[in-house]
Amino acid sequence: MKICEEAKKLNIPHWVRPTPFLTVDGIIKIFNPEFSGIVLIKRKNPPLGYALPGGFVDYGESVEDALKREMKEETSLDIKRKKLLGVYSNPNRDPRMHTASCVFVCEANSLPKAGDDAKECKIFKLEKIPFENLVFDHSKILKNFLNMI
Amino acid sequence: MKICEEAKKLNIPHWVRPTPFLTVDGIIKIFNPEFSGIVLIKRKNPPLGYALPGGFVDYGESVEDALKREMKEETSLDIKRKKLLGVYSNPNRDPRMHTASCVFVCEANSLPKAGDDAKECKIFKLEKIPFENLVFDHSKILKNFLNMI
Repeated sequence: MKICEEAKKLNIPHWVRPTPFLTVDGIIKIFNPEFSGIVLIKRKNPPLGYALPGGFVDYGESVEDALKREMKEETSLDIKRKKLLGVYSNPNRDPRMHTASCVFVCEANSLPKAGDDAKECKIFKLEKIPFENLVFDHSKILKNFLNMI
Repeated sequence: MKICEEAKKLNIPHWVRPTPFLTVDGIIKIFNPEFSGIVLIKRKNPPLGYALPGGFVDYGESVEDALKREMKEETSLDIKRKKLLGVYSNPNRDPRMHTASCVFVCEANSLPKAGDDAKECKIFKLEKIPFENLVFDHSKILKNFLNMI
C-alpha cells in the first residue's frame, strides 16, 4: 500500500503505525410514525453518488458515540442504535484510503434534513434503493441488510 | 487525549490523523471432537493476565484476514470464523492506547499451542473462565458471549 511505503520514509513515532481508518455508517429506519424507509445522503465530494450517512471515528471516541455524532451532523436526526450489522473492512472498499466501517442499524422518529456539511438527505423506500448510484461498498451493505430483515 | 496533543505538535501528513487502532480478538471454541472449551492466552507483557488471542489489524488487511492470521500466530490454530460478537471501542479498554476490537466467535478442531511469540495457550471450560485474571475488557466480552449462547 502506498501509505505504508510513505510512512516508512518518514520519522513517524511508533504510535502512528498505519492502522485502517475506523469509520461508522448508519442504516437509519424512519418511523414517522409509520415506517417510511431509510436515509441516504447525496455526496458533494468524490466519490459522487448516494451513500449511507457516516464518517470517521475520532481517536478517544467509541464507535457508539461516533455513530450518534455523525448521524446528527449529517442528517440532523437523534438516532436510536438497534443492531450492529457488520464490520466492512475490505482494503479496496474506499478509493481514498483503507477504512473499516462499523455499520449499525438505527431508528429515528422524525424527518432527516441535511446537516452543516450541506449534503442532500433523502428517505428511500426499501423497494427503491438506488443500488446503481451507491458509492463505496454501500450496495453490498444494503443487500446484506435486506437479506437480514 | 495525549496522543492527539502530541500529534498536533508534529508535522504529520493528514493521512495519519489519529484514528483508533483496529484490532481483532477471537473466542475460539475447541471441538476435539467434542466441545472442550475456549482458548485463552497468558500474556508475557503488561498488562499481565489472561486474554483472548488477538492483535492488530494491518493497514491493507481486512478484519477477517487479520483474525485468521492472529489466531494462527498466537494459538497455531486454523480457525473457522462463525459470528461477529461485537465491536469493543471504549477509549479506556486498553491502558496502552485507544484500540477498537472486532470480536469474532470461531471454531477449531485441534488443540492450541503457543505460537512464535511464546505465550502460553490454554483451553478453559466455560464454567471455569478466570474472570478475575482477564485483562482489557475481555471479562465484559466473555460475559456478553455467555449471555449470547
